[in-house]
Amino acid sequence: MSAPRYDIIAIGNAIVDVLASADEAFLTAHGMAKGSMRLLNADQARELYAAMGSGREISGGSAANTLAGAAALGAKCAFIGQVATDQLGEVFTHDIRAQGVAFETPARDLVEPTARCLILVDESDGQRTMNTYLGAAQYLEPDAIDEATIADAEILLLEGYLWDPLEPREAMKRAIRMAKAAGRKVALGVSAVFCIHNHRADFLALLDKGDIDILFANEEEVLALAGSQDFEEAVAFAAARVPLLVTTRGADGAIAIADGKRVSVSAEPIAKIVDTTGAGDLFSAGYLVGHVRGRSIEDCLHMGAIAAAEVISHWGARPEADLSALVTARLG
Amino acid sequence: MSAPRYDIIAIGNAIVDVLASADEAFLTAHGMAKGSMRLLNADQARELYAAMGSGREISGGSAANTLAGAAALGAKCAFIGQVATDQLGEVFTHDIRAQGVAFETPARDLVEPTARCLILVDESDGQRTMNTYLGAAQYLEPDAIDEATIADAEILLLEGYLWDPLEPREAMKRAIRMAKAAGRKVALGVSAVFCIHNHRADFLALLDKGDIDILFANEEEVLALAGSQDFEEAVAFAAARVPLLVTTRGADGAIAIADGKRVSVSAEPIAKIVDTTGAGDLFSAGYLVGHVRGRSIEDCLHMGAIAAAEVISHWGARPEADLSALVTARLG
Repeated sequence: MSAPRYDIIAIGNAIVDVLASADEAFLTAHGMAKGSMRLLNADQARELYAAMGSGREISGGSAANTLAGAAALGAKCAFIGQVATDQLGEVFTHDIRAQGVAFETPARDLVEPTARCLILVDESDGQRTMNTYLGAAQYLEPDAIDEATIADAEILLLEGYLWDPLEPREAMKRAIRMAKAAGRKVALGVSAVFCIHNHRADFLALLDKGDIDILFANEEEVLALAGSQDFEEAVAFAAARVPLLVTTRGADGAIAIADGKRVSVSAEPIAKIVDTTGAGDLFSAGYLVGHVRGRSIEDCLHMGAIAAAEVISHWGARPEADLSALVTARLG
Repeated sequence: MSAPRYDIIAIGNAIVDVLASADEAFLTAHGMAKGSMRLLNADQARELYAAMGSGREISGGSAANTLAGAAALGAKCAFIGQVATDQLGEVFTHDIRAQGVAFETPARDLVEPTARCLILVDESDGQRTMNTYLGAAQYLEPDAIDEATIADAEILLLEGYLWDPLEPREAMKRAIRMAKAAGRKVALGVSAVFCIHNHRADFLALLDKGDIDILFANEEEVLALAGSQDFEEAVAFAAARVPLLVTTRGADGAIAIADGKRVSVSAEPIAKIVDTTGAGDLFSAGYLVGHVRGRSIEDCLHMGAIAAAEVISHWGARPEADLSALVTARLG
């Protein structure tokens, strides 16, 4: 097996974030639970957009953010996701390529426009509440997955959000088979608690079949997956089902469990939390780049924490500072 | 004459800014003079966009920025400008309305898309270099100017950039006649040195006819207008032709001259200059709001300096902090 062309290839939502500040009163008035993520249809998206304040548009998408971070750390990355032939599709395409990530999924002339996520940021604590209109992202076809390309990446990263719509789910199942056939590793980010509510049986079946090598899930997601209210019990449940479990705990840092061995790190200190959008995605970026470089689990966790700390220090879910320099300064 | 419905109505480019960081080497390689503003055609805009880094999209436009700032300071404002029926047009429309500015110019189904400005920001000093693709903004028709609405605003603000394309220029001339007939004041922002190079004779004719009551021009623009290399000579030239001249001098503060009387203020102190985009626009906002409230020229200049200092402390040309609170804290 020759060295793969890509370190990481990911399948995820191709989405542009629309970020605006909003206080808790606004969230309550519009029926949002602070810190949550929900899906909107086109009408709901229009209504919420009309009600929210002036926005700034910055490309996003969970797996795409992870790749942007991994590329900033020097990894070779490729992204698969669906945009429409519209201005936001051009914006997404431009931004991920400008980050050095290969993106060749052709834009499609669809009735639904490119996906957007209306993100309300509470300026008092940087917490984000996400409202996603999936639009074109749901129309990723299984045919968009190319066997040679999947086989040419050391890690296949799957975004849990995309398990919801039918066609992308089939596309991801197909990609898993291709990656496994080529002897590659598969990582799954479960994305959100609601994804587990909707697809817990599927996710557990994937884990039990040995399809997933690395599972990224935050504290709440691990609890939901285990159907438990006890963190230790939930971690034991999940860790027994996957070779490597990586769990972020916000300000409490993160843990990883591999082969029954547990490693913890604290969160990186940060002067001011501006916008927590993308924290989990960038944690995964740092971790995965450490992983493909063969670094220790502790180093991988530190790299995740460093990348997450950078992205929450400014608006938007894509890195702005030189992540490689930050990692070198911290870990050498 | 009853009290007007609007404090300020402005005619300007309806434009979305695409901001990315770039160093001097990039500017040089792409033939840009740092700190300048130039116009691009569609092909040039596509090429530059492909070459530049990941962007963030934030609504802009010189006069529109001024209104966003004035509205944030409590003024009643209306904007006239042309967007296309596309996603960036929706973004512009949403953002200016979310700022509390009335915007009723109907979007047009044009071949050219909504205007965008590709702005390269040097992160070492916050200096911005602007590359504008005017697109739909050039298609503002004289018919879009409604006499009753113009008559219903205390000040008509005109954006110099729009003097370039033919139809918007006619629209602005029409608006000047309407404002004058209604006994309103007309303010002109000359926008950029190249506007003076292209339209110096027109601008001087407007001034000499008494069509302009307030002229906003920065140091370089005043020099270009006077055709002089001596600042004092240039200021004397311009001040003799307009009842109120307001000239910003970057870090050296600003001056205003009315009835032969000259008032100066220093720039507001600022912790870190992040992105100077919109500094002049926001200065005009602060000044004009002070003016319509009947404050002293010194207070007006301070209000301009406060609004400018806020906008250069973050990315984008629209205010993010509570400008009214900043002014109250500083001036009472």
